[in-house]
Amino acid sequence: MITWKNLDTVPAYQKLQETTPVALASVMSGEQGAQRVQTYTVPMAAGLAFNYAARPVDDETLQALSRLAEETQLAEKFEALYNGEVINTGEKRKVLHHMTRGQLGEAVVADGVDKRSFYVEQQQKIAELANKVHSGEITNAAGEKFTTVVQIGIGGSDLGPRAMYLALENWAKVNHTFKMEAKFISNVDPDDAAAVLHTIDVAHSLFVLVSKSGTTLETLTNEAFVKDALKNAGLDASRHMIAVTSETSPLAKSDDYLAAFFMDDYIGGRYSSTSGVGGAVLSLAFGPDVFAQFLEGAAEEDKLAKNKDMYQNPAMLDALIGVYERNVLGYQSTAVLPYSQALSRFPAHLQQLDMESNGKSVNRFGEPVNYPTGPVIFGEPGTNGQHSFYQLLHQGTDIVPLQFVGFQENQMGRDVVIEDSTSQQKLCANVAAQIVAFACGKADENRNKNFEGGRPSSIIVGKQLTPQALGALLSHFENKVMYQGFVWNINSFDQEGVQLGKVLAKKVLAHETDGALKAYSDLLHI
Amino acid sequence: MITWKNLDTVPAYQKLQETTPVALASVMSGEQGAQRVQTYTVPMAAGLAFNYAARPVDDETLQALSRLAEETQLAEKFEALYNGEVINTGEKRKVLHHMTRGQLGEAVVADGVDKRSFYVEQQQKIAELANKVHSGEITNAAGEKFTTVVQIGIGGSDLGPRAMYLALENWAKVNHTFKMEAKFISNVDPDDAAAVLHTIDVAHSLFVLVSKSGTTLETLTNEAFVKDALKNAGLDASRHMIAVTSETSPLAKSDDYLAAFFMDDYIGGRYSSTSGVGGAVLSLAFGPDVFAQFLEGAAEEDKLAKNKDMYQNPAMLDALIGVYERNVLGYQSTAVLPYSQALSRFPAHLQQLDMESNGKSVNRFGEPVNYPTGPVIFGEPGTNGQHSFYQLLHQGTDIVPLQFVGFQENQMGRDVVIEDSTSQQKLCANVAAQIVAFACGKADENRNKNFEGGRPSSIIVGKQLTPQALGALLSHFENKVMYQGFVWNINSFDQEGVQLGKVLAKKVLAHETDGALKAYSDLLHI
Repeated sequence: MITWKNLDTVPAYQKLQETTPVALASVMSGEQGAQRVQTYTVPMAAGLAFNYAARPVDDETLQALSRLAEETQLAEKFEALYNGEVINTGEKRKVLHHMTRGQLGEAVVADGVDKRSFYVEQQQKIAELANKVHSGEITNAAGEKFTTVVQIGIGGSDLGPRAMYLALENWAKVNHTFKMEAKFISNVDPDDAAAVLHTIDVAHSLFVLVSKSGTTLETLTNEAFVKDALKNAGLDASRHMIAVTSETSPLAKSDDYLAAFFMDDYIGGRYSSTSGVGGAVLSLAFGPDVFAQFLEGAAEEDKLAKNKDMYQNPAMLDALIGVYERNVLGYQSTAVLPYSQALSRFPAHLQQLDMESNGKSVNRFGEPVNYPTGPVIFGEPGTNGQHSFYQLLHQGTDIVPLQFVGFQENQMGRDVVIEDSTSQQKLCANVAAQIVAFACGKADENRNKNFEGGRPSSIIVGKQLTPQALGALLSHFENKVMYQGFVWNINSFDQEGVQLGKVLAKKVLAHETDGALKAYSDLLHI
Repeated sequence: MITWKNLDTVPAYQKLQETTPVALASVMSGEQGAQRVQTYTVPMAAGLAFNYAARPVDDETLQALSRLAEETQLAEKFEALYNGEVINTGEKRKVLHHMTRGQLGEAVVADGVDKRSFYVEQQQKIAELANKVHSGEITNAAGEKFTTVVQIGIGGSDLGPRAMYLALENWAKVNHTFKMEAKFISNVDPDDAAAVLHTIDVAHSLFVLVSKSGTTLETLTNEAFVKDALKNAGLDASRHMIAVTSETSPLAKSDDYLAAFFMDDYIGGRYSSTSGVGGAVLSLAFGPDVFAQFLEGAAEEDKLAKNKDMYQNPAMLDALIGVYERNVLGYQSTAVLPYSQALSRFPAHLQQLDMESNGKSVNRFGEPVNYPTGPVIFGEPGTNGQHSFYQLLHQGTDIVPLQFVGFQENQMGRDVVIEDSTSQQKLCANVAAQIVAFACGKADENRNKNFEGGRPSSIIVGKQLTPQALGALLSHFENKVMYQGFVWNINSFDQEGVQLGKVLAKKVLAHETDGALKAYSDLLHI
């Protein structure tokens, strides 16, 4: 029997607040530090590991967190979720994105079909289309192959797929699975579409229109922009566009598209990278096999997230330590810092995933909560960030917990030796150095050069950023966010906070405004 | 006579804390709201305006802030800075980046030369080189024109110039001043350089190596990577590379470069976009005239920043309201949200500018301060952000002040009408709607759909993002950051917080590690 309780009513949370804070600079020094690095680690899928040695916890804190996991029934709640319970209470929906990559529990039937079969069927249809495009069975009207795929979507239909594409683009090139270049149009700013159209050859481009409802105004506007361009080039738009949408959307049965692939209401935009939303563009860009490997990595990581034992469940552990940092230590933001240029937009995806899921002030029953929920998430790749905002992270007045990601090997295999080390060795040396610098600091008589330390971080480390590793990484953060939502007793799967702006924007466009809204409209010459 | 005092010892700060907090949702409603939008505005250069109607201030707060400005001698401190006083006390240096775009006060002589003349001379040399490259007077060894310019630099030598390039790329294309495509290599991750080299034709590429000291390890490593590629292509690297560095750096007199342009120790990396660091790549990409227009906008805005009257000084006003939000209201982060796809990397540049300048815990005399200093800065362009992290901004448990930027017209002139409005109108309608939604909120019986409002923002609004407008925008934020540093009594011009990581990374590469550092090195197989 699952009960949903606010965090501040759970006895284990009181216990957690009574634990002795860890002196991170001290426990990370000397042999004790080395010991922590070796023991505070948990294996992930695809050869990754989650190392939390430099997070501000010790055995006492961890025991309290483990008790919190039990009392908040985290594993049971995940089980309920993947077995098809209506976890998204706000919108009264099941939450089934895990099912795009595997069957974690019981069969789930909805809309009269087995959902796992439905998602697999869509993947197969996408794979068939992608193979036909690659082989030249599907071509443009002139019988020429498509060379470019352009995703038109916004939010979850943009950030995740774009981050995943960038993460694997160079890997695919060196592994000879690169099929088509991908571009992305998202912003309603007309310069976004115009600039992308400026760089591509529309005659050889296939556009993927992604909108679950089929009514996303930005996306439909950009579709019209693209259709204009196709028409002006004397092309038949319907031979150049496919749709990814829900079966009930106006796009589903339209003749305007070469093909339509389906998602459903049980997958939120920010959780849709492993559905057709990511599947179409990634299968076209890299081939269906690469997309399958990506799903495989996510599926393996999802299995680990089922583990009731927090110490064997990286997502749950990461989530719980994050709650401790947020609610007990009072840290308000978290930085995501991948030491891999391929992950340049991964922080932007996690920013959406986390902030849109857990930036809530009411619990799942719509009652206000009395404790902080989701933090601000931001980040850029290292080593670039080191020459930028790391100054504040090291010596600012607020402490910002850090989530590093690093790989032993780069993706492209090219490298250069300068001062007796390769670039890849320098990259890895920097992330190792940063973790210790943040945790331990360094005393200096000149206070301006003094580092207090005590700044927590963890690292997910792996051999190389492969499709499987990327899938595991994505799954880890999705499940981390889900578990934090469970702890905070909030609904991580709706987003009512985006509605008011939409309503007011419509009023502005209809010139139905007064007061400040009218004044701003005038200022912007609308 | 200037005195430097900690904020908490300034009487006006005590007064500020005693002011009555403004009920933003209330004052922004109805006619009062419209009135605020019309009066709480101050003109900027290049036709921009800084509108602060939706910031949490009223006449009482503003008067207290104005008094704070006087007591902390903000205008006098800026005057001392531009007249050449050693404001960067940590590194014992003058701070002269304003002088790259104009002469705000007295002539400043350093290193035996008039610095304004020195910067102008470097600009002229860069302009001559750019003109020769564009005309074909300077070519590759085969006598063919260069078509691509690649900047190699990191931190301030990357983020600012890259953001400015992206901001003007499409503007230049439609205004027929686009000369050469620019690319950027920054990260020590070897995949960064490899990926860029994969997309360009090295035989027709000119590389701009940017390092003030000439010893930045990431940059020298990437230079070696590029030189390898040139050599492998049978090319003479010295015909393909120019350097931007200080006169005392090892690169200054080297035969390895076609030309060298100079900057100096009085311009910090994050303030160097208007020096040769931005000047070389932007003049090559868009022509020297466009770069001159950019400087002109910055120079005009700098002049406004001299104004002793806070109400006529947008940078000072923005800075002071930000201090009120940070130190009195306790907000820990600020989001930068440009409604212009061209400004996609402008938030990343401001993130460096602000967090590296003001993420400090000691005052300019090296004594710890007892109040918060620089906030976390993050952001993405609207409308993309609306479909991502805005959920937290609207309904999260923490309040995040917002800095919007918007333009009446887009850059490329292409547009489409859907549902009776253009994309540009939709873009503008959205930013107007968001400001009001954040400020006023909307009550709903369903608490999950309830918006409390009271979430502050300001907007910088202009006709179009031109080179002048971009210069004014950049100058505004540089001067805002400077003024906040003055209020907090910190040195915004050094960055000791980046040193420890560098020292430890060298130890890792030399295998001189023990404890946790050794354990992490093993984990990463270094």
